Amino acid sequence: MTTTATPVDNGVNVEALLGARAALQDAPEAAQFTWRATNTWIRGTHSESTVTGFFGLGAEQEADRSFTTSGDHPPQFAAENNGPTPVETLLTALGGCLTAGVAAVAQQRGIQLNSVTASIEGDHDIRGILGGDPDVRNGFNEIRVTYAIDADASPEDIQALVAQSQKRSAVFDALTNPTAVTVSVA
Amino acid sequence: MTTTATPVDNGVNVEALLGARAALQDAPEAAQFTWRATNTWIRGTHSESTVTGFFGLGAEQEADRSFTTSGDHPPQFAAENNGPTPVETLLTALGGCLTAGVAAVAQQRGIQLNSVTASIEGDHDIRGILGGDPDVRNGFNEIRVTYAIDADASPEDIQALVAQSQKRSAVFDALTNPTAVTVSVA
Repeated sequence: MTTTATPVDNGVNVEALLGARAALQDAPEAAQFTWRATNTWIRGTHSESTVTGFFGLGAEQEADRSFTTSGDHPPQFAAENNGPTPVETLLTALGGCLTAGVAAVAQQRGIQLNSVTASIEGDHDIRGILGGDPDVRNGFNEIRVTYAIDADASPEDIQALVAQSQKRSAVFDALTNPTAVTVSVA
Repeated sequence: MTTTATPVDNGVNVEALLGARAALQDAPEAAQFTWRATNTWIRGTHSESTVTGFFGLGAEQEADRSFTTSGDHPPQFAAENNGPTPVETLLTALGGCLTAGVAAVAQQRGIQLNSVTASIEGDHDIRGILGGDPDVRNGFNEIRVTYAIDADASPEDIQALVAQSQKRSAVFDALTNPTAVTVSVA
């Protein structure tokens, strides 16, 4: 008697990603992407951000795409709570990037995921942003991401999934290493 | 003849923020905040993030608050485009943080804002995240933020507003300086 295993399906097309990697190795100019957002002030600390198209694969892409999100500060900062604070939005970016990686790596390793949840926490001494103490940094002192994963795999294999996702995460890199950011007025 | 100036109103309560700064100078433990998000995998690279309460001022805050956002990769990554990519979400966090700062600094300096829009761009060589070249970083190579601001102020004063916002921005700091991030499995 033989049993037929259900094919692993996390909804990630690994063949397409491996094909893209191979193709871009010979065409590095196609790998140069520019991602964009616009942010428009509403009132107080409330603003709205819109994400539409991006540049990549040598051309403008997805011009019709449009995602809008709000940001604001909470009442504890005398604000109106119309959306998450930007530092919280940063934590969602980190979680979303790592989780996408977990799914992609799991697919590549033949591991079926059943559920994946990340809890993300960032410690922040707000005396920095308030300008109260020049020795306190403006950003987070430390960020912790804790995964709860139910998958058809051993605890060791699940640990390895998360480690590999971290190793290839764009947002993890953006937070743990410096990036040049220039801010100007048109 | 005298003219009565309309009071500057950008919707920011500067008195409350200055009061908070003064109060926290004598109570640094109240300034220790922990911001949080949870991220839940849906399918493929699609996940949802939720932001609820946070810890600050020595206690749990805003437990009833709830903001949910989606993240995904676009079709160019063989994905379903159910939300902005996490790197785009990172750019919205940067824009939202700097714009909130522009509004707060403008209020403090008595400058009426009429409109504020930021265009944020991040250059990204995607060979890093695809694992195609170990010399290519996973994150952005460079980020540019360009403001268009209509305000009752000189170009020099508008430049100075933006510079001061950058100087106190939590997300600007998080991107330009390294932060310790630990990722683990519960």
